[in-house]
Amino acid sequence: MFYLTMDILGTAAFAVSGVLVAMEKRLDLFGVVIIAFVTSIGGGTLRDLLIGNTPVIWMRDLTYVTTILITVFFSIIFANHLKYLRTSLFLFDTIGIGLYTMVGIEKGLQAGLLPVMCIALGTMTASFGGVIRDILCNEIPVIFRKEIYATACIAGGASYFLFVLLPIPDSYAFGAAILVVIVLRILAVRFGIRLPNIYKKET
Amino acid sequence: MFYLTMDILGTAAFAVSGVLVAMEKRLDLFGVVIIAFVTSIGGGTLRDLLIGNTPVIWMRDLTYVTTILITVFFSIIFANHLKYLRTSLFLFDTIGIGLYTMVGIEKGLQAGLLPVMCIALGTMTASFGGVIRDILCNEIPVIFRKEIYATACIAGGASYFLFVLLPIPDSYAFGAAILVVIVLRILAVRFGIRLPNIYKKET
Amino acid sequence: MFYLTMDILGTAAFAVSGVLVAMEKRLDLFGVVIIAFVTSIGGGTLRDLLIGNTPVIWMRDLTYVTTILITVFFSIIFANHLKYLRTSLFLFDTIGIGLYTMVGIEKGLQAGLLPVMCIALGTMTASFGGVIRDILCNEIPVIFRKEIYATACIAGGASYFLFVLLPIPDSYAFGAAILVVIVLRILAVRFGIRLPNIYKKET
Repeated sequence: MFYLTMDILGTAAFAVSGVLVAMEKRLDLFGVVIIAFVTSIGGGTLRDLLIGNTPVIWMRDLTYVTTILITVFFSIIFANHLKYLRTSLFLFDTIGIGLYTMVGIEKGLQAGLLPVMCIALGTMTASFGGVIRDILCNEIPVIFRKEIYATACIAGGASYFLFVLLPIPDSYAFGAAILVVIVLRILAVRFGIRLPNIYKKET
Repeated sequence: MFYLTMDILGTAAFAVSGVLVAMEKRLDLFGVVIIAFVTSIGGGTLRDLLIGNTPVIWMRDLTYVTTILITVFFSIIFANHLKYLRTSLFLFDTIGIGLYTMVGIEKGLQAGLLPVMCIALGTMTASFGGVIRDILCNEIPVIFRKEIYATACIAGGASYFLFVLLPIPDSYAFGAAILVVIVLRILAVRFGIRLPNIYKKET
Repeated sequence: MFYLTMDILGTAAFAVSGVLVAMEKRLDLFGVVIIAFVTSIGGGTLRDLLIGNTPVIWMRDLTYVTTILITVFFSIIFANHLKYLRTSLFLFDTIGIGLYTMVGIEKGLQAGLLPVMCIALGTMTASFGGVIRDILCNEIPVIFRKEIYATACIAGGASYFLFVLLPIPDSYAFGAAILVVIVLRILAVRFGIRLPNIYKKET
């Protein structure tokens, strides 16, 4: 129940981020709906395709489609008021990222993949919906330029493989890793932490 | 036979639309061929990948590849004359959209998916080739901005699930739904019907 | 052993090309790593998804991930010196293209596909990593505009199906086809050979 609530909140937050980007580009209603979908489920879909032999989850479970359509409906109606919800949206989005990272890792483990691949799948689950959203909107993905949240996913995902070595139940390690992703992202945004610059000074 | 003829006409019309967009971007011969392919078979390929456990149809059936290559050949040679064929092309394109929508729905039903997912797959089959075409040409997909044909696919697809409730053979319901897509699109283009505007007046 | 060495050199050369494009776009470290990955393994991944029922190779074999990460590390450190390596990079890249073409063809044959589809898969393996790289960097893929290397892949791939008709071991035909790709590309670049122009003179 708790898991389901978080999953719905995360899905909705991702959908809102899709609606916002799509409306900034003045897409029509169909475009906005598609971008919201892609942002929410694109990462998980790519993960399921890469793992193979896994049914793509949202095609068999109406929860996602329903959540996204309701979110799009209210996001469009209250588009002008979304700025007042910025903190809540950021929180849901961050919860979504943490949760999606661990969902991706768990799917990778179930498929018998190595930890490094599981972490890659987790990061992909959490971040590639946004990548596809940006490509469809004809932008270089924001996560390749300034967002640091992929790094939070990678670090949180790696922490899981340390936590499972501890004498604690697996579900605790799972929850702790989600918390690591969430805390890292909040700290990074709060303190403006960026990845090390790989370019010469003159930029 | 009738089905095959329509399928070939639809494939060719989609390929022509790919050639036109690619040539407007001054792509070279290889680029034009790839864009024509992607426009024709991109939607169906994405559908087959999402359904899974389905062979991607054009890889096992030379009809599509042959149709597309011949279409590209003649489209390039007669590129300057294609404008005189605008009405025919629009008609073939619309037939293709109607047919592709129902092919996608049928594949979804065979995979045991819910009606709403089948309609989504049908719309995807009919419209995502154009989406991939526009992305490869570095444009925001036209269907997200002004084309209304996705809406015709959704409405036509939904009508099929009403028609099958009637005491008529399934193939009649199939054909009627294709007609709904075709008629809706023609009406929308003729009367300039657009999706409801979701933005404030000042735009 | 020889095969493995060539595979690693090709993977690394593709990764370097990804790093160079990504750094030109001033992406951050995460963006550079992702673009390097996508350039190296994007073509093979798309091929495996289209064939279906094939595990995506880099997810089960650490060679690729390790090669790419090491390549990215050194490419960033020596970014300013890469221009002195241009000839070596071009050579590795060309070897990679030749090898990837034949790997794609072999996978197609194993899946029981027709020669024309195998050639398409080979060309895709060799060239679509670069296509995805360019799309993620918000460019029209260079291979659709001026690079001729897809044509070298197609011709080399086709030559394989002639070579296997000769009374020589299959591995010789395989190697000869790789050589055809390599030689054609070197000749094309050396002599500035382009695809025939499909546009009117005035451009």
